[in-house]
Amino acid sequence: MSDTLVVGLDVGGTSTRAVALALTGERLGVGRAGGGNPTSHGTERAAGELLAALRQALAGVDAERVRAGTIGLAGAGRLLADPAGRDAFDRAWRDAGLRCPYAVHGDALVAYASGTAGPDGTVLIAGTGGIAAQVVGLRLDRVADGHGWLLGDAGSGFWLGREAVRRLLADLDRAQTPGPLGARVLTELLGSDRVAARPRDTVDALVQAVTRRPPIELARLAPLVVAAAVEAEPVATGLVAEAADHLAGTAARIRPPGSAEPLVLGGGLLTGGTPLAAAVAAELTRRWPDAPLRPAGDGAAAAAWLAARDLPEVTDPAALHPLLVPPAA
Amino acid sequence: MSDTLVVGLDVGGTSTRAVALALTGERLGVGRAGGGNPTSHGTERAAGELLAALRQALAGVDAERVRAGTIGLAGAGRLLADPAGRDAFDRAWRDAGLRCPYAVHGDALVAYASGTAGPDGTVLIAGTGGIAAQVVGLRLDRVADGHGWLLGDAGSGFWLGREAVRRLLADLDRAQTPGPLGARVLTELLGSDRVAARPRDTVDALVQAVTRRPPIELARLAPLVVAAAVEAEPVATGLVAEAADHLAGTAARIRPPGSAEPLVLGGGLLTGGTPLAAAVAAELTRRWPDAPLRPAGDGAAAAAWLAARDLPEVTDPAALHPLLVPPAA
Repeated sequence: MSDTLVVGLDVGGTSTRAVALALTGERLGVGRAGGGNPTSHGTERAAGELLAALRQALAGVDAERVRAGTIGLAGAGRLLADPAGRDAFDRAWRDAGLRCPYAVHGDALVAYASGTAGPDGTVLIAGTGGIAAQVVGLRLDRVADGHGWLLGDAGSGFWLGREAVRRLLADLDRAQTPGPLGARVLTELLGSDRVAARPRDTVDALVQAVTRRPPIELARLAPLVVAAAVEAEPVATGLVAEAADHLAGTAARIRPPGSAEPLVLGGGLLTGGTPLAAAVAAELTRRWPDAPLRPAGDGAAAAAWLAARDLPEVTDPAALHPLLVPPAA
Repeated sequence: MSDTLVVGLDVGGTSTRAVALALTGERLGVGRAGGGNPTSHGTERAAGELLAALRQALAGVDAERVRAGTIGLAGAGRLLADPAGRDAFDRAWRDAGLRCPYAVHGDALVAYASGTAGPDGTVLIAGTGGIAAQVVGLRLDRVADGHGWLLGDAGSGFWLGREAVRRLLADLDRAQTPGPLGARVLTELLGSDRVAARPRDTVDALVQAVTRRPPIELARLAPLVVAAAVEAEPVATGLVAEAADHLAGTAARIRPPGSAEPLVLGGGLLTGGTPLAAAVAAELTRRWPDAPLRPAGDGAAAAAWLAARDLPEVTDPAALHPLLVPPAA
């Protein structure tokens, strides 16, 4: 047993992270490469980033000792349904020197497992998008939202950014001077917070500045909302409260009322002590007072733990969780 | 005076309409051509449609008798700022045999003038998009919304269509059977109202069906909402009430509280007795109980009336309005 290693990968849109762990929790290697989401980057590029992250994590490690591995990625179902994509991932796995089988799971399951070893519960994720999933027996069950910026992602980073612009446009329509958040949005989009003598000219300039870029880039305004909410700016505070209500509502679509199962919060907007994380936690506690709330942690380590669970020498997977998955900061 | 004719044009995204009128109200000719919005179709094509509509309206008319003309079109400001566009319109005007000058006004002003001769008031328009404008001395003053589908157009046809899909997706997330409106949306987008054994498969299919097309095409689902609201379908009725609240709120951004000036309702969703038109009228009457509500009517005739107002022989433009602009059905 002391010879056995497991490998975990967390493949995201901006980075791919890999870890090689002993069952004692010892970290034998970590790797990091570029974004490898096969849906947004293509399977060949995704497989290339996977291989780069694996090679780093396995440098100086006897790959023969690795007995199980798990890859967590967004759009896992689509990869598994695509023979060419599956082939590219198989090849990267072998090229890294690995001979054991591997499993592919959705990023939502890996985020869930990074916060708890409990087999059943809910994970709620808000970053650029927003999604909730029920987990049953450490498998993804029902999913809510994650419908993309055009039709869903209520309360997400995209949503916060778009709403910040909408409030600003409404102020300008009313010929009101924008407040502090509006001024920050103006500066970010137009380079200055000055409003034209005819406010409609500023409205037109804002609409053009936004529509010149892909809509999803509205999400890059979310940090302005979060920063303004930290300073209790009233528009930002209102948007954060509304976003928290949307996100809790997303979870409520799939999570039974009164459930005491764990709730894991993941994604850049719900980790790291943001005002949105606090507002969502309050809203979830109001709706599910008996549920433990857990922050999502190290996804690559959680993927490695998911892989280890099926090894014959692992008789108590829950006891292994705190060894392999460091608690979130 | 009996020899004097005026010409009016209403240039829209789907059709261009022209009318030649005597000051007695006698219609000497009408013309209709394809969509001629210079912003969406390009100025050359727009000028071509303008010429086609003008030639029909002036067939059998001595063009020398035309003493004034007005063109109403969306994006009028952009056309006037573009010398090449202005040249193309000048050429079409001359090629139609016209020697008098013409004015170009925004479509919102022409819609307003099609409903009232009052110099000051508000026009609220909901079709694919949504916009409100204050009119002062028969000139466009402040404008609210019209920010486009990504950032605005609250309560518009796009908004109704998108919200109908969102409600359906929320039902599917909750594993609820869609109601009558949801079933119609499913049939329209997927060809059948059957929900897959795994409702998430239907969710994915819906998201893909919508995102395959330009977002603005969500507006083509608005008639489903309107039709369902006619039958008092509860989701549709709720969406129509919410849209009416948004549209009245758009007007409230620019219209003073308590104003008794006329309110003109235009656009496909606010004319022709739709449930949305009724809901908006009720909401506007609640907010501005002393204001007369007027439906928008014949835009080309209103444009002709706007042109006639400046002729020396027209001493009472308001008295001319009922002669030139037939009341809306």
